[in-house]
Amino acid sequence: MLTIAQNAKNASYLLASLPEQIKNAALAAVAENIKANQELILRENRKDLENSKDITKSLYDRLKLDEYKIDVIVKGIHDVINLEDPVNKILAATELDKELVLNKVSCPIGVIGVIFESRPDVVPQIAALAIKSANAVILKGGTEADNSNTVLVKVIHEALSRVVDFPANAVSLIKTRDDVKKMLEMSGYIDLIIPRGSNSLVKYIQENTKIPVLGHTEGICHIYIDEFADLEKAVKVTVDSKVQYPAACNAVETLLIHKNIAEKVLPRLLERFKQEEVTVKLENADWHTEYSDKIIAIKVVEDINEAINHINHYGSHHTDCIITEDTANMDLFMNLVDSAGVYCNASTRFADGFRYGFGAEVGISTNKTHARGPVGLEGLTIYKYRLYGSGQTVAEYSGKHAREFTHKKLIN
Amino acid sequence: MLTIAQNAKNASYLLASLPEQIKNAALAAVAENIKANQELILRENRKDLENSKDITKSLYDRLKLDEYKIDVIVKGIHDVINLEDPVNKILAATELDKELVLNKVSCPIGVIGVIFESRPDVVPQIAALAIKSANAVILKGGTEADNSNTVLVKVIHEALSRVVDFPANAVSLIKTRDDVKKMLEMSGYIDLIIPRGSNSLVKYIQENTKIPVLGHTEGICHIYIDEFADLEKAVKVTVDSKVQYPAACNAVETLLIHKNIAEKVLPRLLERFKQEEVTVKLENADWHTEYSDKIIAIKVVEDINEAINHINHYGSHHTDCIITEDTANMDLFMNLVDSAGVYCNASTRFADGFRYGFGAEVGISTNKTHARGPVGLEGLTIYKYRLYGSGQTVAEYSGKHAREFTHKKLIN
Repeated sequence: MLTIAQNAKNASYLLASLPEQIKNAALAAVAENIKANQELILRENRKDLENSKDITKSLYDRLKLDEYKIDVIVKGIHDVINLEDPVNKILAATELDKELVLNKVSCPIGVIGVIFESRPDVVPQIAALAIKSANAVILKGGTEADNSNTVLVKVIHEALSRVVDFPANAVSLIKTRDDVKKMLEMSGYIDLIIPRGSNSLVKYIQENTKIPVLGHTEGICHIYIDEFADLEKAVKVTVDSKVQYPAACNAVETLLIHKNIAEKVLPRLLERFKQEEVTVKLENADWHTEYSDKIIAIKVVEDINEAINHINHYGSHHTDCIITEDTANMDLFMNLVDSAGVYCNASTRFADGFRYGFGAEVGISTNKTHARGPVGLEGLTIYKYRLYGSGQTVAEYSGKHAREFTHKKLIN
Repeated sequence: MLTIAQNAKNASYLLASLPEQIKNAALAAVAENIKANQELILRENRKDLENSKDITKSLYDRLKLDEYKIDVIVKGIHDVINLEDPVNKILAATELDKELVLNKVSCPIGVIGVIFESRPDVVPQIAALAIKSANAVILKGGTEADNSNTVLVKVIHEALSRVVDFPANAVSLIKTRDDVKKMLEMSGYIDLIIPRGSNSLVKYIQENTKIPVLGHTEGICHIYIDEFADLEKAVKVTVDSKVQYPAACNAVETLLIHKNIAEKVLPRLLERFKQEEVTVKLENADWHTEYSDKIIAIKVVEDINEAINHINHYGSHHTDCIITEDTANMDLFMNLVDSAGVYCNASTRFADGFRYGFGAEVGISTNKTHARGPVGLEGLTIYKYRLYGSGQTVAEYSGKHAREFTHKKLIN
């Protein structure tokens, strides 16, 4: 594990200096080699499927690769090639003085550890995002996908080795829980951990590392139907937020309804929920529970403030929505609700990197620092300050006869 | 402690919605009340000074307040009033579709815990930055400044209480180590911890909390004198980086010199170091040590790559500088050195929020996520996504007859 981490760190330094063309050439090589090794990959995947006959149908489907999924993987890599290079962008520039210019430049974070479950297509997806953002990545998948993950990393590694000037150690795989444990302790080598999987996996990671973790555990999303709501929008948006994909983290779990509109909107909602086979909890609901299923908790509230307080107190700060035609209430809700996504009159299911137009999604973060909400390539970058001088000393800018800084904004 | 944390959290929600005028009015009230209570503050400060007769002169000077320092504090608050409001800025906007607009808006982080040592002037400084950025702050100062800190927070609280619509619990003070311990465990209430003080204080905090910590422990800064360096710039910048304020975290600790220029530059440097009473370590230097004193370690290197590898391996990723007239070497160094600040031909002592033109500095971060380098008000903000719709559902954008997103960038 230490060798893998050291190699990844060394690769990360080299990656930071690569021009966009080499990174895109590496991505194209990876896509090509995956397609060229399709049969090998599917054969290894079948071994995993044979070892996993006891798992649920939905897990089995996620584990299974086929020709169509390989094509989706290859297309996904080409989509990443077409995204704008997120690093080496000048984010701001200031002339501190004559011939003393400060640039704030986006750069990779360094080494990222990604821990995920069952779906082997995560391997090429995350590898592609890491390559594009010039980060080294250490992957750890579920044991049930071991053969698939191993062959995918081998094929990626092979492709990267053929690209001149590209450090193939940019992508590596670890396999045991013991390695994960060690990785979580390597804050000297690993700069960011991204867990993708169940709430319990994410929670375990968060509780067992000093390395920054990007992700979210629960998605307890709310819709508040304001007294000034349009009834049709209220019903349409609420039903979509619950039933379009109930297992998603951005599906609504709790519906709050203003008392003055409850009599009008509830019968229509209950009818639609019945049609869609959604179980409604009107009493003894647990406001802390993420059902991830066709279940919704409903509470009638006195006013918008009770709704906002409920959401800030019981929610998971993921995505919360108000249905209203009143601009003042909309603004109040959007200002005071402390969530990564605050919506007005739109389904909570829109909380997604692709729908937001990011082109790719690393995950959804409910952190309050670094990156929040759906995270695209930008979330895999940080910045550094480059100062270009011509021999200036701080002594010249200090004391009685100090030179003054110009602090002229060149790029803002 | 729990009550303080809960009150701070509740205050943080209200702060997030305050317009700039109210925040600036609060800052003006604080400045005025500090000046009005100058005698009271100096009286309390004298109690601390009397209890601290055994401390070193430099600590005593830092602890001591006087009329001049009060005026500096008051001026500092007015400087913060004049800074641009860092929250409620639209950072990006995308039309996802007709009547479906996504805004990325800067917002406060929430509740920030600041742990600092001895200097009581940190109290109004941090309180002002927190108010401007709409964050609630919980302060913990050193016990030796207990009376000073208490009266300052009391005077600030008093001023805030008089401002209509302003939550006075935005600023609070805790006093015991036990409270700090509890705060470090309150990840549900505290969103960010900023330790300001010794390396050991910062290290203790980093090792004892799951809450994100913004700061740095060591500042092991390097200068590399390239074979293509201008000799005069090399000597001038190196001496300034070492002697202008040797105790600062951005002072240089290790000097790397290309073997082809060593004979020419070393004699001149050694002479200047002798004049400035700097001790030079040419043998048995410890590359991991932050001297924070008039001591410098010197190593002659084979080439620029050895210099870069040395810096990435032994450095603290704070601020590192190359002296060269060669553009290719400058670019190589600035790309490959993985530090918050990478400089060419300028003193490492420029690494500072005021010199960078931020107007205020929260601290200097060597983190690889969120904020890096000198951190101004922007580092106390994050963003949220606001989605404005007119009843859209995700079902409309899914499946066979899916509507297509326009993803038109409105603000980038």
